[in-house]
Amino acid sequence: MTMTTDFDSSTLTAAVLDSFEHTPDPRTKQILQSLTRHLHDFVRDIEPSIEEWGAAIDYLTATGQKCDDTRQEFILLSDVLGVSMLVETLNDAETPDATDATVLGPFHVVASPPRDAGDDVSAASDGPRCLVTGRVLTPAGEPIVGATVDVWQADTHGFYDVQQPGIQPLGNGRGLFTTDADGAFRFVSVVPSYYPIPTDGPVGALLNAAQRHPNRPAHIHFIVTAPGFEDLTTHIFVAGSPYLDSDAVFAVKQSLVTTFVTNTSAEDAAANGLQSPFEVADIDLVLQPSPASSASPES
Amino acid sequence: MTMTTDFDSSTLTAAVLDSFEHTPDPRTKQILQSLTRHLHDFVRDIEPSIEEWGAAIDYLTATGQKCDDTRQEFILLSDVLGVSMLVETLNDAETPDATDATVLGPFHVVASPPRDAGDDVSAASDGPRCLVTGRVLTPAGEPIVGATVDVWQADTHGFYDVQQPGIQPLGNGRGLFTTDADGAFRFVSVVPSYYPIPTDGPVGALLNAAQRHPNRPAHIHFIVTAPGFEDLTTHIFVAGSPYLDSDAVFAVKQSLVTTFVTNTSAEDAAANGLQSPFEVADIDLVLQPSPASSASPES
Repeated sequence: MTMTTDFDSSTLTAAVLDSFEHTPDPRTKQILQSLTRHLHDFVRDIEPSIEEWGAAIDYLTATGQKCDDTRQEFILLSDVLGVSMLVETLNDAETPDATDATVLGPFHVVASPPRDAGDDVSAASDGPRCLVTGRVLTPAGEPIVGATVDVWQADTHGFYDVQQPGIQPLGNGRGLFTTDADGAFRFVSVVPSYYPIPTDGPVGALLNAAQRHPNRPAHIHFIVTAPGFEDLTTHIFVAGSPYLDSDAVFAVKQSLVTTFVTNTSAEDAAANGLQSPFEVADIDLVLQPSPASSASPES
Repeated sequence: MTMTTDFDSSTLTAAVLDSFEHTPDPRTKQILQSLTRHLHDFVRDIEPSIEEWGAAIDYLTATGQKCDDTRQEFILLSDVLGVSMLVETLNDAETPDATDATVLGPFHVVASPPRDAGDDVSAASDGPRCLVTGRVLTPAGEPIVGATVDVWQADTHGFYDVQQPGIQPLGNGRGLFTTDADGAFRFVSVVPSYYPIPTDGPVGALLNAAQRHPNRPAHIHFIVTAPGFEDLTTHIFVAGSPYLDSDAVFAVKQSLVTTFVTNTSAEDAAANGLQSPFEVADIDLVLQPSPASSASPES
């Protein structure tokens, strides 16, 4: 029988665990009880003063209030604490045959506009052009036709569209593509720059207090989805970018570092609506069949 | 040497700990590294799916965005998870000679108006009246003159002023008093009711998912401060109130349960500007000398 008043620092934890004992959904119960255990362990470890507790309340409140339609400060906090990458890593272990996953990041806050193969996703941006080509494949190397490839990236100056109020409508640096009969997709863009994550909010204050730099190496985000396959959230990183060895959000995997090759052919440039020279990145993105699909009668 | 890319679920934690290694302030460093350790342990324990991680981000964001000038949803979350009471309990252990502390709660969001001894703090509220008298004392029982006694409470219907937009200016149910030459304070109010904490936000959704009731036993909040003494944040609970044995925020201490005695004397009523009968609660609030004060040359 759990005590109901006059808790000390250990009976209190038992009482809170007990309060979640009748949670009907087993997964919710597991999460709430694990949260209670680890959160109380953390509090007992640091023994916060009342003022420190108040500062934590204020910090969490400010983090929530910094979020709006184009800013997600709690994802940014999860990212710099390594939580986002830890969650990706734990989930990634379940799709060993797929392309490595990495963090979603805080900038997938507006929908990418549907585009046609070969479109320039960054028409409103200046800077050196790149052509990104690739295929979406099964682990056996077969093309996945009709897969959706959602792309978003920063520009040559390191900013996403949502960080540039002048760019309207939103969607510059973003595109939604569908793979063709060969599982292929292609788009033109600008070569992205490395950039600092936004430091004008609570996460910036945390990095500043820890004297951590806020920079991420240059990358392009992808979410690839197809019926019967597990979703893939990943980046390609630009080989040679600064900060590949000290990404502020711990998200670099060597398998995702991609060489952007300079193409000097005027003919190739013209075929893609570009001027010579331009950069080319070519990537395969491999999806893992989802368990339900593998076990289906058709397979 | 910590790896800088391609983390697995344990090298990642080491990398995040390492990223905080150069935090200049030792206490900040301790807190950030302990947070990292416990937060990563929690994530590894529950192995959230990407969708569950997203739901957690949304929950924290909604909690921050529910906060405004008169609502503090993160304190409420801290309260129902037992974190507030755990912090109070750990700090309370350092003031063994003082009156027991308990949680601040989420309703100390507006300043209490300064009032004179004997004032009715709840003039805008209907319901049975009580007279609260007491003294602020040292552990040796000596009066503390000029102590500040900050009082706030719900009304007969279980609502604070900030929950009743009709009541303007804010300050009903609140008062700031100064102890007299005997260390005494006194005020008139309504006998508070037990009440449910606000359930129209993320914390209500959590309690609902866990099938936990949201009720707190009837109480009056106090913060007592005096130069040279540790601050005391506490309640008095109304003896006999429902939910004394299942407070939604785990805050009940038997030492704080106070009998409200019925006084039927017309003379006593008149002396306090009340009608007979009325309730009387009399309490001593004992402050612990602060360490700096104890060690000062004057002591």
